Amino acid sequence: MRLKLFIKYDGTNYCGWQRQKNALSVQEVLEGALEKTFGEKITVVGCSRTDAGVHARMHVSSFDAETTIPVGKIPLVVNMYLPQDIRAFYCEKAADDFNARFAAKEKTYCYRILNQEHNDPFLSRFVWHYPIALDVDKMRRGAEFIVGEHDFKAFCAAGSCVKTTVREVRELKLEKNENLIEITIRANGYLYNMVRIVAGTLCYVGNGKLEPEDVKKMLEEKKRVLGGITAPPEGLTLEKVVY
Amino acid sequence: MRLKLFIKYDGTNYCGWQRQKNALSVQEVLEGALEKTFGEKITVVGCSRTDAGVHARMHVSSFDAETTIPVGKIPLVVNMYLPQDIRAFYCEKAADDFNARFAAKEKTYCYRILNQEHNDPFLSRFVWHYPIALDVDKMRRGAEFIVGEHDFKAFCAAGSCVKTTVREVRELKLEKNENLIEITIRANGYLYNMVRIVAGTLCYVGNGKLEPEDVKKMLEEKKRVLGGITAPPEGLTLEKVVY
Repeated sequence: MRLKLFIKYDGTNYCGWQRQKNALSVQEVLEGALEKTFGEKITVVGCSRTDAGVHARMHVSSFDAETTIPVGKIPLVVNMYLPQDIRAFYCEKAADDFNARFAAKEKTYCYRILNQEHNDPFLSRFVWHYPIALDVDKMRRGAEFIVGEHDFKAFCAAGSCVKTTVREVRELKLEKNENLIEITIRANGYLYNMVRIVAGTLCYVGNGKLEPEDVKKMLEEKKRVLGGITAPPEGLTLEKVVY
Repeated sequence: MRLKLFIKYDGTNYCGWQRQKNALSVQEVLEGALEKTFGEKITVVGCSRTDAGVHARMHVSSFDAETTIPVGKIPLVVNMYLPQDIRAFYCEKAADDFNARFAAKEKTYCYRILNQEHNDPFLSRFVWHYPIALDVDKMRRGAEFIVGEHDFKAFCAAGSCVKTTVREVRELKLEKNENLIEITIRANGYLYNMVRIVAGTLCYVGNGKLEPEDVKKMLEEKKRVLGGITAPPEGLTLEKVVY
């Protein structure tokens, strides 16, 4: 039967989601745990190929397995074989043709910036520590241009090849609690490094290196060089996938 | 001059605050960073000797050093020599006879329990994962007996020797947000493992192995065996020190 497994992970110690030859991926570790759980080799399809160091609070995989374990108890068994930085938390039976990657209709990411002089060991695994003061109101004005259906070519890492660079950003929200700035983005899909380029560009708007209107110019001229840096992976977390 | 340095640390990778022969302590790492900062050997006095795996959001040290670095900039320099799981965040000049350990008037600890079926990689370094349902109202009723000045002999690990086992608990608060239970305790001083025995005992009240009134009985009969287990170190954080 086809199963749909939900996991969370702290991506600090992994080369990303996708299996690689010379580095440890979340996919490889998960497939190893599933092999121990079901007694057969399992290949999973993941909803999103997160980069090295990126985290997920909800990551969904689909795969086939035959088992007598009640579906609701599968996370408990899989967790016995997973390291502490990856945890399964939910499993359900899916339609036979369900594909966790292609069936995803919408994903939400959150990029977190800790905007204070010194980093915080309680947060540092999951934030970008940025010690220079950021003007969140200016960042919000820049963020407004990103919402909607646009050609996001300027927000895509060089060298990636996709059929179309048009995506629809349905929500882009900036919240500040004490010194933690959370940039939450909800879209039907993402280009390679898109959220990290959005975060790095909004950061440059916040520190004064760019103006809010430069975000509009990036979208119009479709030039990556007009934007800010690609923000580092540790601040990024995949928060939610909708099917 | 005498200095008062404030640090935070994730204690996961340390044998505790106090310097030890065959294991890495926070004190050893901090003294190493201070030696590089000031160019001379520094010995610090810490406000609290946290156990292996216990964390601190505010830990205060006193020490003597001669330097031309402006006092407010010392954390910035010390942080260059500290690992990411220890961060200095404030420094000030103290009175010549200030002693971070003996001058402490009150300390606040928080013990965090994640009460849900599966652990959470975003929280797991700083919580005790406890999968069995806990009755927080019962725990609160047990906690009420602890507040006040009492002989806490029953809440002290065997083998520790102190002049008196009387301490004053000024506040003991239980809060639950989603599945996270926070036990906050504020006292003039603590016995060895006291907070972890309080947390483990309240946990046994919450799961039904003990009744709230058993906490009263522990205090009256002064017997450690009447209580619950010593809760594991990862859930404990020193939150605040008052001078």
